[in-house]
Amino acid sequence: MADPAVEALIDALRCLPGVGQKSAQRMAFHLLQHDRPGAEKLALALQGAVADIGHCERCHTFSRAAVCDLCSDPARDQTLLCVVETPADQAALERTGSYKGLYFVLMGRLSPLDGIGVRDIGISALLQRAADGVVKEVILATNFNVEGETTAHVLGEALKQRGLKVTRLARGVPVGSELEYVDLGTIAHAFMDRR
Amino acid sequence: MADPAVEALIDALRCLPGVGQKSAQRMAFHLLQHDRPGAEKLALALQGAVADIGHCERCHTFSRAAVCDLCSDPARDQTLLCVVETPADQAALERTGSYKGLYFVLMGRLSPLDGIGVRDIGISALLQRAADGVVKEVILATNFNVEGETTAHVLGEALKQRGLKVTRLARGVPVGSELEYVDLGTIAHAFMDRR
Repeated sequence: MADPAVEALIDALRCLPGVGQKSAQRMAFHLLQHDRPGAEKLALALQGAVADIGHCERCHTFSRAAVCDLCSDPARDQTLLCVVETPADQAALERTGSYKGLYFVLMGRLSPLDGIGVRDIGISALLQRAADGVVKEVILATNFNVEGETTAHVLGEALKQRGLKVTRLARGVPVGSELEYVDLGTIAHAFMDRR
Repeated sequence: MADPAVEALIDALRCLPGVGQKSAQRMAFHLLQHDRPGAEKLALALQGAVADIGHCERCHTFSRAAVCDLCSDPARDQTLLCVVETPADQAALERTGSYKGLYFVLMGRLSPLDGIGVRDIGISALLQRAADGVVKEVILATNFNVEGETTAHVLGEALKQRGLKVTRLARGVPVGSELEYVDLGTIAHAFMDRR
């Protein structure tokens, strides 16, 4: 019933993850009624990103340059390579300020149920990257759920076969938490990995 | 830490209502990794809508044409004018198929706490529109919450002073709810029972 250009906008907004018909409609009306400059800015940002953003050829994260800023930074420890699933995970680790090495971003994780196998997560690119002769230790920082653990296991085995030192982020009780409310699996791991 | 073009996209996505930093990041990464055609389509839809969409000069809804399709439709009953708050509300009423008159879309509602007064919701435009000599009945279909009821009351008084017949959707609609989310049967009954 609405104007076709409004319908087209509502339809296009549904390509965003987690946005259904109602949310898309609300977003479209909000932009048209209250934030046309924001809509224009968003259109330009989308076009700019789609046109310019590729993947860093060393770590595979999103980057305009062939090699991203982090990979080109001589101050980073070139002997450490931290493997994460997504740029969001990488950003979370960077915010801690506690890691000074380099990254490899898988851009996914093993998930056989979704048809994502070993080839889809660029394992051969990782093996090639890790075998550059400079990297001494690969830190597996995939998520701590079933898919992430599986991914870490598969990658770990392949990397060890090539004689690389492989470590995994420590599992344990989160800082600030009370034991009473921590799940049993976490406490069991914290017991095993006590130091 | 991410590429400036990615950061710009994340920042621009935050202009969408209900989207914070985490959601924007998730949307940006999803578009770049899995749906670049969708991102391009969204950019074009945004630009098209911002450039072309104005307001219908008769009912004030979003429209590319000076007068929208619904207002130009000779099959609609020209003597009935239904006043709604938003195009989303209008769309909800239209989906019932139980109303054949015309609309006036306020594009807002009285909300003194948010600084939205009588002038901001185009009351004078409504009075002018309703006084065209053809409209015989004005049906107030603002939402059934505090602001909507207040708006209906203020509009109703002003319209009655000009000698127009004013009705309100029947209270078959559950009190406290918003039209956009009400089931169709309830809305159809409310049309029949208007008083």
